Amino acid sequence: MTTAETAALLDRVRAYRRRHAAKVLSDFATLLALDNVTRDVPALRRNAAAIAGAFTARGALMEVVGHDGAAPVVVGRLGADPARPTLGVYVHYDGQPVGTGDWRTPPFEPTLCTPDGHAIPFPANGDPIDDDWRIYARAAADDKAPFAALLTALDALRDAGAGLAVNLVFCFEGEEESGSPHLRGYLRALHDRLRADAWLFCDGPVHHSGAPQIILGVRGYTGFDLTVYGPLAELHSGHFGNWAPNPALDLVRLLATCKDDAGTVTIDGFYDGTRPVTDADRAALRALPAVEPALLDRLGLAEAEVPGDRLIDRMMRPSFNLRGLSAADVGPLARNVIPTQATASVDIRLAAGDDPDRMLELVRDHVARHGYHIVNREPTDQERSAHRRLARFTPTAGYPAVRVPADLPIVGQLVRAATVASGREAVILPTVGASLPLHDLVDVLRVPTVILPIANPDNNQHAANENLRIGQLWYGVDLWALLLTQH
Amino acid sequence: MTTAETAALLDRVRAYRRRHAAKVLSDFATLLALDNVTRDVPALRRNAAAIAGAFTARGALMEVVGHDGAAPVVVGRLGADPARPTLGVYVHYDGQPVGTGDWRTPPFEPTLCTPDGHAIPFPANGDPIDDDWRIYARAAADDKAPFAALLTALDALRDAGAGLAVNLVFCFEGEEESGSPHLRGYLRALHDRLRADAWLFCDGPVHHSGAPQIILGVRGYTGFDLTVYGPLAELHSGHFGNWAPNPALDLVRLLATCKDDAGTVTIDGFYDGTRPVTDADRAALRALPAVEPALLDRLGLAEAEVPGDRLIDRMMRPSFNLRGLSAADVGPLARNVIPTQATASVDIRLAAGDDPDRMLELVRDHVARHGYHIVNREPTDQERSAHRRLARFTPTAGYPAVRVPADLPIVGQLVRAATVASGREAVILPTVGASLPLHDLVDVLRVPTVILPIANPDNNQHAANENLRIGQLWYGVDLWALLLTQH
Repeated sequence: MTTAETAALLDRVRAYRRRHAAKVLSDFATLLALDNVTRDVPALRRNAAAIAGAFTARGALMEVVGHDGAAPVVVGRLGADPARPTLGVYVHYDGQPVGTGDWRTPPFEPTLCTPDGHAIPFPANGDPIDDDWRIYARAAADDKAPFAALLTALDALRDAGAGLAVNLVFCFEGEEESGSPHLRGYLRALHDRLRADAWLFCDGPVHHSGAPQIILGVRGYTGFDLTVYGPLAELHSGHFGNWAPNPALDLVRLLATCKDDAGTVTIDGFYDGTRPVTDADRAALRALPAVEPALLDRLGLAEAEVPGDRLIDRMMRPSFNLRGLSAADVGPLARNVIPTQATASVDIRLAAGDDPDRMLELVRDHVARHGYHIVNREPTDQERSAHRRLARFTPTAGYPAVRVPADLPIVGQLVRAATVASGREAVILPTVGASLPLHDLVDVLRVPTVILPIANPDNNQHAANENLRIGQLWYGVDLWALLLTQH
Repeated sequence: MTTAETAALLDRVRAYRRRHAAKVLSDFATLLALDNVTRDVPALRRNAAAIAGAFTARGALMEVVGHDGAAPVVVGRLGADPARPTLGVYVHYDGQPVGTGDWRTPPFEPTLCTPDGHAIPFPANGDPIDDDWRIYARAAADDKAPFAALLTALDALRDAGAGLAVNLVFCFEGEEESGSPHLRGYLRALHDRLRADAWLFCDGPVHHSGAPQIILGVRGYTGFDLTVYGPLAELHSGHFGNWAPNPALDLVRLLATCKDDAGTVTIDGFYDGTRPVTDADRAALRALPAVEPALLDRLGLAEAEVPGDRLIDRMMRPSFNLRGLSAADVGPLARNVIPTQATASVDIRLAAGDDPDRMLELVRDHVARHGYHIVNREPTDQERSAHRRLARFTPTAGYPAVRVPADLPIVGQLVRAATVASGREAVILPTVGASLPLHDLVDVLRVPTVILPIANPDNNQHAANENLRIGQLWYGVDLWALLLTQH
């Protein structure tokens, strides 16, 4: 397709989405109104059925494939012309738990807001729509946005009479936010139906600068809950305080040994498996726009954890994030007691080369070296009586990081399409912070897999007030229209 | 009263309580069924009315004295013979919050249980009653037990035709578990009606060995909540982990600087105000039975915080107890986020000589020395953007420790009565672990004030499954019968 043809096609697509914007947003809101908290299998089945139905309505052959006790995977195909290349499209339809955070609007009542946060009615047909408006809902960005973009692109191309230049195969997962426990099994079982020349892993936000980006890799993920035990029952802190061991104090003292003032994890061997950053990586990293001042401002932070550190440099190393702490109560519910136990929840983001199981072994070794007897279930009273320091270590499912070479043809094609669709030069990111089950796709399907994000960077994914900027949805529509008509 | 007369009186009192045990327990259960969580003023008013009514029914002149927004104080008098000494009786009728702990039976549905924890029906009249049975309910021990003991003693003495040898004045508080914010004001206002030769502060458990004890002092109390702030909204830990400051990690690293491996608080000046332990104190402390092996066994602990430490030695020093921790979520609700804030709740038990305000100043200085900007309310967004380390410090109300001389006549009298009533040699404890508003009584009423406990040491006060051993109630009845008939 010539530059002129591309421009003409984009004009028609944009005219279509302007005419039908109210319907596009309303359909998206309908999808977002389906609660989709990960592990809630009945709710996720409703999402799977709705999504399969939407693609079927566009001519795709879809199937919802179930697995006892797990959210189903939705697979399908659109087009089967052997003369055309086939693109695989991965999206996940489950969302993070909504937590106890301060949602300004209910997470499953999609709400349109102006940039200053005022809720406004969804537009009627023909109403002007501001690109800077946002839809607030769990999964608005992570990860239902790609569904809305792709479905709208298909509608716009049909309206424009433009044929598809690629076949599509689909794999829509419902367990990504739970660590994808069944994805590998699903992929293996459905391997023959998921053949493609490349897979696009559609998730995550564009670059912090707002530039579109193509991402070559992801951090891996692992994590654990660690519970430290004290007395069998809560004890009066006056009668026993500072004599009976306090598990909350034991826990904070143990956690404090895990990271130093320079932000370096001090667990023995923690960085030993990490693939070194090459000169080529370093050059790509240096080429990335600086995002830190704007980020600090937007996040309400005075400085980074280690003042002056670049975000991208931290992403090339494994992390140790204390995602939750709990012991007895604080605030008005606090009681003058020695708690019976204290729990920390930690997630570890992995860099290319880090083995998830080995990282957890290093943490266990660290805990043991600090004098703890470690169990993998609730300890017995006998175990509690026998060990001054006793900890329960509960690992969470994880997966390694992956990174693909920068010179794949699909990468160049994506960079060009993203640049045209957005009007801004797309950047290539060697790795992104998100942990995605990319390695399952790569390991099982054995074809190049690249990440193609469309969401705004400040989408609050995983947190309260998750949102999608409307302009990002339009970017996704335009991008997909180009990808579907070019090869 | 001769030894023989005393023995005869005790026989009659014991015969009375055996005949009426079912009624005594049932009346006690009725009182315990009145929920009495501290700060719940409407509920506490119901308790105050019930208690005033019970003493009025025994011939006392009672008055419930209110204060806007506060639980009332119940004051009264029984007997006004100027030829007799007057004993002041302090009891508190509010209880600790019931928390989210694992209550085996609802905290305000008093339940009778056998020593192995099986619930049994309350006895009918004449049924045998085991001294080792327990009543489970919030405030069963802390601090409604003295009401049941004193009321039953009055009934038994009337039944025995025994006249009182002392006048009684009463001060029953409803805010003890909230730090007694109005007690001093109440005492000042009611000073003339509370004249007595000595006050008995009726609260707490007997010695850990089970021996009766007379207590000469209490630890003081202060505390604070400390909240450390991170990003304005929860952040995706993959995109921002180990670059954005994690307030939970900042908090644990800060808390870890507060106490060392030897159990010593490492906050500058923390022990400087503490009155040194004298040789006389040390002799009294040495005379106390060793309780640690049995305690460790009962509490399900392998060792003390600092192995080998004696409990009583820890009580002669100020403590630093981490009573609660909170940041985001742990367990199944945990999300992969950097929390926006993390909170620790700490209580500090004071030894004689420690000034509560000064102790909090030392903590604030310590926090500031670790680089924190400290605010006393929720910080503004501007403050969060301006300070890499930002903490909210919220002090709780406190009071100093007190300790009276061991050679007061009332002390000897109490030791003798407790020894006769229990059949075991009573011990004198220079200080107890509980923090009680003893200093308010001492400062305002300016007469000797001694603590007279009756509850079992393993009563789970302040925690789930609070209970009173029935034998302790009978000890309290016998003890009061002796105190009321002798001087």
